[in-house]
Amino acid sequence: MKTQLEQARLGRLTGLMKSIARAEGIGEGALLDHVAEGSVAIMRRGRRSLGIGRGLRTKVNVNIGTSPLRIRPDDEVEKAILSEKCGADTLTDLSMGGDIADIRRRIMERTTLPLTTVPIYQAAAEIGLGHMEEDDILRIIREQAGEGISSMVLHCIDAEVLARYRGKKRIMGVVSKGGSITIAYMMRNQRGNPFIGCFEEIISILRRHDIVLSLGNTMRSGCIHDAMDRAQREEMRLNAGLASRAHEAGVQTIIEGVGGHVRSDRIAAYVKRYRRLSKAPLFVAGPLPTDVAVGHDHIAGCVGAAIAAGAGADYLCYITPAEHLGLPDPKQVKEGLIAFRIAAHIGDSIKFGPDERDRELSRRRAELDWEGQFRHALDEEAARQMAPTEGPCTMCGDFCAIKMMKSL
Amino acid sequence: MKTQLEQARLGRLTGLMKSIARAEGIGEGALLDHVAEGSVAIMRRGRRSLGIGRGLRTKVNVNIGTSPLRIRPDDEVEKAILSEKCGADTLTDLSMGGDIADIRRRIMERTTLPLTTVPIYQAAAEIGLGHMEEDDILRIIREQAGEGISSMVLHCIDAEVLARYRGKKRIMGVVSKGGSITIAYMMRNQRGNPFIGCFEEIISILRRHDIVLSLGNTMRSGCIHDAMDRAQREEMRLNAGLASRAHEAGVQTIIEGVGGHVRSDRIAAYVKRYRRLSKAPLFVAGPLPTDVAVGHDHIAGCVGAAIAAGAGADYLCYITPAEHLGLPDPKQVKEGLIAFRIAAHIGDSIKFGPDERDRELSRRRAELDWEGQFRHALDEEAARQMAPTEGPCTMCGDFCAIKMMKSL
Repeated sequence: MKTQLEQARLGRLTGLMKSIARAEGIGEGALLDHVAEGSVAIMRRGRRSLGIGRGLRTKVNVNIGTSPLRIRPDDEVEKAILSEKCGADTLTDLSMGGDIADIRRRIMERTTLPLTTVPIYQAAAEIGLGHMEEDDILRIIREQAGEGISSMVLHCIDAEVLARYRGKKRIMGVVSKGGSITIAYMMRNQRGNPFIGCFEEIISILRRHDIVLSLGNTMRSGCIHDAMDRAQREEMRLNAGLASRAHEAGVQTIIEGVGGHVRSDRIAAYVKRYRRLSKAPLFVAGPLPTDVAVGHDHIAGCVGAAIAAGAGADYLCYITPAEHLGLPDPKQVKEGLIAFRIAAHIGDSIKFGPDERDRELSRRRAELDWEGQFRHALDEEAARQMAPTEGPCTMCGDFCAIKMMKSL
Repeated sequence: MKTQLEQARLGRLTGLMKSIARAEGIGEGALLDHVAEGSVAIMRRGRRSLGIGRGLRTKVNVNIGTSPLRIRPDDEVEKAILSEKCGADTLTDLSMGGDIADIRRRIMERTTLPLTTVPIYQAAAEIGLGHMEEDDILRIIREQAGEGISSMVLHCIDAEVLARYRGKKRIMGVVSKGGSITIAYMMRNQRGNPFIGCFEEIISILRRHDIVLSLGNTMRSGCIHDAMDRAQREEMRLNAGLASRAHEAGVQTIIEGVGGHVRSDRIAAYVKRYRRLSKAPLFVAGPLPTDVAVGHDHIAGCVGAAIAAGAGADYLCYITPAEHLGLPDPKQVKEGLIAFRIAAHIGDSIKFGPDERDRELSRRRAELDWEGQFRHALDEEAARQMAPTEGPCTMCGDFCAIKMMKSL
């Protein structure tokens, strides 16, 4: 079986591409070209398969999963269901506690969204940092790939990136969990990066299942004073090269970058720098334009993500109010997701111009049509909950500007 | 007695200017120059007097006040106290229900922040749209001015602005409450703008009490499809001219503009357009870069306000989650305020470079020093509430990137 990318390269418009083109309002020919050149990646999962990248709506990912210290699979399933209901585009299961394969299975049973995994998380949690071998990692990659997941994250730092990193002073150091597990594996065992070492084999597994390769961002900055440094630039170059190799081999790829904590006036420039290196869809975690919004990082992240999306980022990883503090509860997951859907929407209004949804809602608002406003709101439930149950808005009463202007 | 502006023009550095310069970390000479040229306005209120404008930290205003439909003075006093506690820079009392003068008095008794009023609100609420006369408006201006308020909002649209407005199709029309009350007064009575008609007299009242004149933004757009139009541009020019007249007469002035609902990619350009017209500090309501974030407008507003502040806006008017839906409760007031303090902080990191507070917090975070993080957080209370009460962060446990990297 050929992957979507291989078929696109042969000029074959698949049923999946047709439905994505229709859903996104993009021409079929344009989408075919973008898939073929690797600027759009298709995450496959039945009817909820979706495209990420050039010319398409900005997508939002929600991270869920148990932690070593909080193993409540029911909570994670609840978060997954809630995320789907509240408009997440994709889910990533980051479980590191309990029966990880079973949790993943349960999440997939109860949701229909494309699911991403990070195999090194499962390897580290199940086997332990000190015992993990390359074979274990490959086995887990094979197992996860066989379960119908849509995308897989690999952290591909090499000796070159690490050399650049060591030479540079940072306040926060490395803040990527998957990245630091990988570095720990490399340094403890005095070995090279397991994903790069087995790249051909991993690529062939991903190709067989048409799974999107997601290249992680180990060197992202952990605070706004840790600016883009040589280690980050080197990782970006390395990932761009690996994305090309995967693309050659028929495997769709997205690259994580420009994430973490980044001064807001630099975000757009970093996105542009990335674009000069790769056509692959850009996946951004946050970024957070300040470090002091503890407890409200979803709001700060919304600012950074809106700017990043407007500058060309294709895919946003949400941040919850619990970021830096603990595993989020379901309510915090929803708050983070909504904040990032707002960011994606604002970003899209820069990419594509203001949305018809804004216009439609505003028309209803101008008519004081509450129902119409609710229906067009990004979070209909919240709007309904806060609105007056009967009678006019309690803010202005008869001094409503809209009413007064109508009466003149 | 001379106003701060008049003293600055004479080259006299007042005690107030000295303390503001110290608090803001700006040179006394620079501040003196900025006050003299009108690019900084000082809102006076005892020890909490503050400067707004060029070279100073971006300030955040909180609107409170009863509505005609919800008259609960205790709630408004509670919101005022909570806002002061949570870091608001100024308060604006927009009360339109109950004993308005008494509510204002109670707010001033219980808080120490500079307070702004909108006299036309009180006039319309107490006398009624159909009965209000110029003398009533002047009387209320005199009364409010005598009570120690710091700033007063006047909506100064004239026939020229209205002519431009009528000729232009908008989805939302006029969405400024004070503006539409003023328009209603003008059109029902077939008279000119009362504030412009009595401008000299009002200016002399403000001068006597050294109250900052705040020129309202009647023509702000009510949805992102209502772009900057001729009415808005004309109002901006009119306000810039009135600000010059007030400045000549020794009255400090700020101008409200670029607010409402504005596409995020246009906000910076609008701020720059304003700057070409006036040196007066720019006060921005929002702006909201999308219309569909109903129930979460504080988050969308944070994006717009961060961009506006970064582009040069000096003073932000907060937006709460209840915007467009009703009068906010105290919890929503706090949420809106925190979102806008985040916006101001992000804006300042563009204006002045990253803050030391971000660096200090990040240093504590890198040391896994929870107490230190809390102390540097913008909202210490929220951070404490969400953090683990004991033991490590529940997100990563032993797989904490910071811990792992330290152990290598």
